[in-house]
Amino acid sequence: MSVTVYRKAHFNAAHRLYRKDWSDEKNFEVFGKCSYPNYHGHNYELEVGITGPIDEETGFVIDLGILKKIIYEEVEQPFDHKNLNVDVPEFENMNPTAENIAKVIWDKLSARLDASYVISVKLYETPRNFVVYTG
Amino acid sequence: MSVTVYRKAHFNAAHRLYRKDWSDEKNFEVFGKCSYPNYHGHNYELEVGITGPIDEETGFVIDLGILKKIIYEEVEQPFDHKNLNVDVPEFENMNPTAENIAKVIWDKLSARLDASYVISVKLYETPRNFVVYTG
Amino acid sequence: MSVTVYRKAHFNAAHRLYRKDWSDEKNFEVFGKCSYPNYHGHNYELEVGITGPIDEETGFVIDLGILKKIIYEEVEQPFDHKNLNVDVPEFENMNPTAENIAKVIWDKLSARLDASYVISVKLYETPRNFVVYTG
Amino acid sequence: MSVTVYRKAHFNAAHRLYRKDWSDEKNFEVFGKCSYPNYHGHNYELEVGITGPIDEETGFVIDLGILKKIIYEEVEQPFDHKNLNVDVPEFENMNPTAENIAKVIWDKLSARLDASYVISVKLYETPRNFVVYTG
Amino acid sequence: MSVTVYRKAHFNAAHRLYRKDWSDEKNFEVFGKCSYPNYHGHNYELEVGITGPIDEETGFVIDLGILKKIIYEEVEQPFDHKNLNVDVPEFENMNPTAENIAKVIWDKLSARLDASYVISVKLYETPRNFVVYTG
Amino acid sequence: MSVTVYRKAHFNAAHRLYRKDWSDEKNFEVFGKCSYPNYHGHNYELEVGITGPIDEETGFVIDLGILKKIIYEEVEQPFDHKNLNVDVPEFENMNPTAENIAKVIWDKLSARLDASYVISVKLYETPRNFVVYTG
Repeated sequence: MSVTVYRKAHFNAAHRLYRKDWSDEKNFEVFGKCSYPNYHGHNYELEVGITGPIDEETGFVIDLGILKKIIYEEVEQPFDHKNLNVDVPEFENMNPTAENIAKVIWDKLSARLDASYVISVKLYETPRNFVVYTG
Repeated sequence: MSVTVYRKAHFNAAHRLYRKDWSDEKNFEVFGKCSYPNYHGHNYELEVGITGPIDEETGFVIDLGILKKIIYEEVEQPFDHKNLNVDVPEFENMNPTAENIAKVIWDKLSARLDASYVISVKLYETPRNFVVYTG
Repeated sequence: MSVTVYRKAHFNAAHRLYRKDWSDEKNFEVFGKCSYPNYHGHNYELEVGITGPIDEETGFVIDLGILKKIIYEEVEQPFDHKNLNVDVPEFENMNPTAENIAKVIWDKLSARLDASYVISVKLYETPRNFVVYTG
Repeated sequence: MSVTVYRKAHFNAAHRLYRKDWSDEKNFEVFGKCSYPNYHGHNYELEVGITGPIDEETGFVIDLGILKKIIYEEVEQPFDHKNLNVDVPEFENMNPTAENIAKVIWDKLSARLDASYVISVKLYETPRNFVVYTG
Repeated sequence: MSVTVYRKAHFNAAHRLYRKDWSDEKNFEVFGKCSYPNYHGHNYELEVGITGPIDEETGFVIDLGILKKIIYEEVEQPFDHKNLNVDVPEFENMNPTAENIAKVIWDKLSARLDASYVISVKLYETPRNFVVYTG
Repeated sequence: MSVTVYRKAHFNAAHRLYRKDWSDEKNFEVFGKCSYPNYHGHNYELEVGITGPIDEETGFVIDLGILKKIIYEEVEQPFDHKNLNVDVPEFENMNPTAENIAKVIWDKLSARLDASYVISVKLYETPRNFVVYTG
């Protein structure tokens, strides 16, 4: 008898998609205008889902105050108002696609949460493009 | 070959989170401002999902008019413009967390719908906090 | 050459609509289920608009950090997770309709902001009912 | 280690729900005002989900530019600003319910995409009624 | 000291844009795919605004229950699940553009409401195209 | 008898707020994390409003196809997937605040549209912060 609880968060960041080992032409061919050299950016909207049993005493799956704090420390503080390619070590050698950002967020949150929880990460890059990663 | 059809509904209600057998201090420690004594409230937004095969004759999984009527009778009529702690018998001894409200709604709808359907209940307490219960 | 900048905020509160000097029957006749005795509640969504000239040096009409702080102190802190009828002095003798709440918010914000600004308050009681007050 | 990427699209179309082999009375009894003879219409909002592994080289599950083009050719071009009952061959003998439209879209997209992908189709007929089909 | 209160409503309808006195080519040149002969359709979302003083006794600008009933009788009942060109007399000789539909709605509502109110009509034809008419 | 028609558009861009003639400390003091040196970014959502009389022949205030093309040429093409500070000449010596971006967009659109129209520009920097400029 499990329930999934969701908490939203958001961060605004710059990024570009490209591979250092490819030419500008190859990068543009594969990544289009997402590869423009001076970066562009997004309002990333995040929905974190936590699945587990309801605690009989509190009626909670998880204390959302604790979840909010973990999301702040692991995602909002290191990513918000940053350049993902330049300022965030995880993307030094990894393309900051929505897919990879979701995976990085999932890994960081998983390391902080009880292993009994099932975790899902939904990340909107724009209101029209988004991804879901569930580990 | 199953399809899930969804129907939205909503109700506005007051509630507070607390346990009668705990002190005010303990309740505030665990439930924070959600435990304030004079209640607060929410616009609860509900999405009910019904999974089943498409009826060859009508092209429907379920007649949404019937589903709408059941949601009205089981959820909107008893919960809307009510105080969940005071007016709704199900929460007399159960904390009206989003998790527990979703479970109560699922139980009430399941009792009215054909057992062959798979039912899901998504309940938004706020646009930023929501839960999903699937039985 | 004026621009209007908007900042959103929100608070969750309980309320009921009724007049102490009316009978229950009269209250129900005029306010319907909004007059139910044990309160119901809403996720109030607030949009505050500030109209003024763009500061040449900063490119801002107003520092949104300052506006955010004023909204927190004047609206979120005193109203959030509260019962408007019971906990908020302004509504001791005033019906907490969306119209009156918007007017109270406008009065409180105006007292804190430079008189040269034009202020507007948009308040959603539900996603379907909302009001705008501009002084 | 799979991720699902989503892409939104939309089309505006007319339709009516009815069976040619039923009387007007029977059609109205089952389909209500959706059976009115002169058609009504909707802004259909579509979310296509593609599940697969992240390509190590690009960081993509699928090139969204390619997916966007396939959705345009298979859904938007043939359905947008059309009458589903009259103009779209797939519905000549099939009721254009949201369930059936979602299934038709899924079949058309599946025929164009690599068989290793898992495909989901979410179709909003209105902001309040929607369906999900996953094959 | 005026406040504007807003109420949302919606209707789903078919329409096409064309002039009977123009050739098909001329209609397509001016109205594009909106002129396709077999109609298309929309989920029209309506926001009606009523500006007036706050009634001291009730705290209301207008009883939203009365406004809801008038919108139902004047807009939802005659337009919902209808073909605007065929079923709605107002558009027999008037192109059902969003502009003209908004004007027709405003005229119908104005005839039912106290002349002291200022009325505004916002009509979404799609989430991306909308109009406002204020008389 | 005027109507306002609105058209939405969007662009994703990087920017930072700072003055070249201020120290890093001064910039951080005034612009906070918006002044971080490596840029951040936003999904800017734009709503352009055009007010004018309804053309009797077409029922349109303006052909939205023409408006869409002008918005593409003046806003989306030069701003989308760009760094506003680096790639857009208008911001070489002007801070790209939402206020200033809205003003620049208004000026560019006004130069392309008939002077008889009244133009408004609403620009969302995030879903929570936005500005309106009307000339």
